[in-house]
Amino acid sequence: MSMSNRERLLKWLQDAYAMEQEAETMMKSMAGRLKHYPELEARIEAHIAETQQQAEEVKGCIERLDGSTPKAKSAAASVMASVQALGNAMMSDEVVKGVGICYGFEHMEAVSYRALVIAAEAAGEPEVGEVCRRIQQQEQAMAEWLLDHHAAIVGEFLAREPAPDATAKR
Amino acid sequence: MSMSNRERLLKWLQDAYAMEQEAETMMKSMAGRLKHYPELEARIEAHIAETQQQAEEVKGCIERLDGSTPKAKSAAASVMASVQALGNAMMSDEVVKGVGICYGFEHMEAVSYRALVIAAEAAGEPEVGEVCRRIQQQEQAMAEWLLDHHAAIVGEFLAREPAPDATAKR
Repeated sequence: MSMSNRERLLKWLQDAYAMEQEAETMMKSMAGRLKHYPELEARIEAHIAETQQQAEEVKGCIERLDGSTPKAKSAAASVMASVQALGNAMMSDEVVKGVGICYGFEHMEAVSYRALVIAAEAAGEPEVGEVCRRIQQQEQAMAEWLLDHHAAIVGEFLAREPAPDATAKR
Repeated sequence: MSMSNRERLLKWLQDAYAMEQEAETMMKSMAGRLKHYPELEARIEAHIAETQQQAEEVKGCIERLDGSTPKAKSAAASVMASVQALGNAMMSDEVVKGVGICYGFEHMEAVSYRALVIAAEAAGEPEVGEVCRRIQQQEQAMAEWLLDHHAAIVGEFLAREPAPDATAKR
């Protein structure tokens, strides 16, 4: 049972590693389109740096459990390709959609780390649990920031952007 | 400006309609795999019914603005196909991943309806705003339920499921 929990923990850490890499890709693609939203851009850039650090920390946890990180990427490749397609499709639309996707993604990440905290405890790996708890809090802080600034971003978007087919229609 | 805001509102409502249909597909696919998690299954089933009702309400808002719902599906089709692929890929993995995806998705939905409330106000459509506010609260309630039950679900999963490669490895 303990061995099994340890393997589960390793698998979830590998998934989390792939998730962080995809988060980085998604946010980089988003950050490039935010020149009119400097505050949002700065927060996304800061979270990209945080995300890179998180990936390193998760990698450290994987190594502690004698797992390999490259394996993680291929294991979760199909899921992550979908996330990327989703991200790209949504990002190319509008900043508001991008913020919505990002907000949802941060929650998915946060709750994944919550699961990891429990899995780490079950596997008798408190140090891994501590790392995951810290990352969970960072994901949550990012999500909260997005929510706090959401109304302002939407208002600015509505004031700035013409509807896509407004010209075509009249 | 007012016309433009109205068209934006219509476009976002059409996106929301497509999102609800995808949410239904995703949750149905998830509900079918939850026989060992009856409480979660019941909550998902209840939210599927809620989601169908939400789609109808959103459709009513679209019709109020003289828009068409079929248009919505094709417009958001590529994004939604990605969501579905993501959902399927993740759902086939584990209940814990499924809950994580669902939790993230509910937040994305909730924040999309927040944006719609603002857009409805900007377009001078308070009744649409009220509908969207009500749906937003339902999405949020679903997300909160998932968070409240998350630790129990993860614990049950860890107690129940052997790690996928535990047998293969030793």
